[in-house]
Amino acid sequence: MTMPADLHNAGDRPCPSDLDAAGIADVLQALRARAPRVHCITNSVAQTFTANVLLAAGAIPSMTIAPEEVGAFARSADAVLINLGTLDAARRLAIEEVLAGLDATGKPWVLDPVFVDRSPERCRYAGDLMERGPWVVRVNHAEYEALADNEAPPPDRIIALTGESDRILGEDHAACLQNGHQMLARTTATGCAGGALLAACLAVEPDPFKATAAGLAIFALAGEIAGEQAPGPGSLVPLLLDALHTLGPADVEARLNLS
Amino acid sequence: MTMPADLHNAGDRPCPSDLDAAGIADVLQALRARAPRVHCITNSVAQTFTANVLLAAGAIPSMTIAPEEVGAFARSADAVLINLGTLDAARRLAIEEVLAGLDATGKPWVLDPVFVDRSPERCRYAGDLMERGPWVVRVNHAEYEALADNEAPPPDRIIALTGESDRILGEDHAACLQNGHQMLARTTATGCAGGALLAACLAVEPDPFKATAAGLAIFALAGEIAGEQAPGPGSLVPLLLDALHTLGPADVEARLNLS
Amino acid sequence: MTMPADLHNAGDRPCPSDLDAAGIADVLQALRARAPRVHCITNSVAQTFTANVLLAAGAIPSMTIAPEEVGAFARSADAVLINLGTLDAARRLAIEEVLAGLDATGKPWVLDPVFVDRSPERCRYAGDLMERGPWVVRVNHAEYEALADNEAPPPDRIIALTGESDRILGEDHAACLQNGHQMLARTTATGCAGGALLAACLAVEPDPFKATAAGLAIFALAGEIAGEQAPGPGSLVPLLLDALHTLGPADVEARLNLS
Repeated sequence: MTMPADLHNAGDRPCPSDLDAAGIADVLQALRARAPRVHCITNSVAQTFTANVLLAAGAIPSMTIAPEEVGAFARSADAVLINLGTLDAARRLAIEEVLAGLDATGKPWVLDPVFVDRSPERCRYAGDLMERGPWVVRVNHAEYEALADNEAPPPDRIIALTGESDRILGEDHAACLQNGHQMLARTTATGCAGGALLAACLAVEPDPFKATAAGLAIFALAGEIAGEQAPGPGSLVPLLLDALHTLGPADVEARLNLS
Repeated sequence: MTMPADLHNAGDRPCPSDLDAAGIADVLQALRARAPRVHCITNSVAQTFTANVLLAAGAIPSMTIAPEEVGAFARSADAVLINLGTLDAARRLAIEEVLAGLDATGKPWVLDPVFVDRSPERCRYAGDLMERGPWVVRVNHAEYEALADNEAPPPDRIIALTGESDRILGEDHAACLQNGHQMLARTTATGCAGGALLAACLAVEPDPFKATAAGLAIFALAGEIAGEQAPGPGSLVPLLLDALHTLGPADVEARLNLS
Repeated sequence: MTMPADLHNAGDRPCPSDLDAAGIADVLQALRARAPRVHCITNSVAQTFTANVLLAAGAIPSMTIAPEEVGAFARSADAVLINLGTLDAARRLAIEEVLAGLDATGKPWVLDPVFVDRSPERCRYAGDLMERGPWVVRVNHAEYEALADNEAPPPDRIIALTGESDRILGEDHAACLQNGHQMLARTTATGCAGGALLAACLAVEPDPFKATAAGLAIFALAGEIAGEQAPGPGSLVPLLLDALHTLGPADVEARLNLS
């Protein structure tokens, strides 16, 4: 199957040479300068934090899932996130509406198949969505394995595999990011909000591999700064948003561990 | 069309003489003393922050949109907020249930037509709701213009127009509030939660123009105090709620910029 | 009627002898060591804070209410919370799906009949759910009285009655917890999140009375520590989550007031 092979053979593929601190800081700067609109079909637990992450980073979130409206919102957005948490009939219908509109435009979209390891039905559905052409699929290791067990996903997607360290896997390149903080796992929706930031970066950076690396790096750096200051996961949330707001090229330069 | 005319000619209408710091502090005091119940039909992104804003200011929130129950909640509430964010079929049904009950009672309600500039369908629906008699319509400039382009709203509504400075526009009076903090725009649902606070003020202050000014002022003052302390938009949220909780007449006296 | 009698005669029933600081600290330790999965059917206002409370305490939350999936999530969970806030058709269907699966397994579940005092329809429904065998029913005084007025609940449920002080009422035992902080009432969803923590404790502690006392105590102690530091209800939220994360046996020993 493709996904585990991708994962285990990633060492064969080089890290692009422009994935240095200056390149990541450029994407951060573009995000703030262009304030992209990101329409998020995301789970009810993650909506507020996701909106705040996008706003703190300089993007403009919208969140409706109503079928009458979601097409208009997606059409006027610069990128779309489809996150499968709390997946219900309304969200499935919204996803259909949005994807029908996206097919024609070539607008970037990110798929986050949350908890596919906990629900066979959701895993099958995620497999179908993989065929619809997401630019990036964001997964943790359990979700990655559930998808790979289910059926082979197309090899031309970028996989953003998050965990103790993050991997970015493309057809020709691979990279490994070693930033972040362990306390991020004790706060809900950090992965989900990080997926929305990927979509925002895809809206402003034409190279999807670089955009994916930048999105993961910006989130992980803010989380790392916050985690070093926070006495617990409660304080991590406001500190992470503050760090997203104040993150500058010097922070990226000093901290980025991407290879 | 009525709305732009209202906006541009607001200078013709005087600011009521009792809209001073003492008058605003009286409404704040009444809010805490009477703990009004505010039923909010609001979007899924804003629900938690809105509930926390109401609680911090001394009011009692409820949030259900279930058709079997929303009538009972609205009947036992002192004021109602109808916010059109994440507007779906369930929320439309809930709005119908609530308005059917409100028509008879004369209970105050606030309409917040979120993002009507992004969805023509929502804009039409908001136009219909304007005819149903909201006491106050809360909008930002883009929403205001979308509504005005769509159809002329009745001139006897109070318009709470929020932006860099806030305007309160009534049939006979107008006022301008220059408090707040620019970082409020980088935190989700500040406008939505502010709309709920308007509803709470309408429940305790019989003059709707004064209640509207007070609601906007109390929120903006808390936001201003928080914004001055917060290193970023993450810290702004807890600090704003703390400031709503501790705001006193001396703060209002020292900071209020309403004319 | 049973509930008021239970409440008023609680003095007749002794507090179990193992409900001391060491016993409560043992449950806290088990929670962190075993990281139980807790599936929560809970209201849209409480979802994010509830997930964060579970994560900060060491448990793993899931939250979907989709009928296609909720059965699979509940089956792979170690305990279930059913909270009746924002009770809509989707949540009723989810509750049916989950309870149909639970009946056979004997998995612990907690019922939190939020706001039954505000909705007769919800109160009737809560009465029906009481017959389905929740291990613990969490209520405040107004909810308790509404349920008791409606119909007599089975006497073999543990009642977790929260208020200025918390009462734990079982068939043979009763206890009173005097920890917490008054500012908890000015933050939304503290009761709801506390109910989820009860479910987490039931998953790791075989004695349901002890698990209930431990869940209430752990939440109240974290709230007390946070409330002493917080200038207002906004700061209370991150500080409470931090305190849940760092709470240790020495804190329990120094502060627990359970008798």
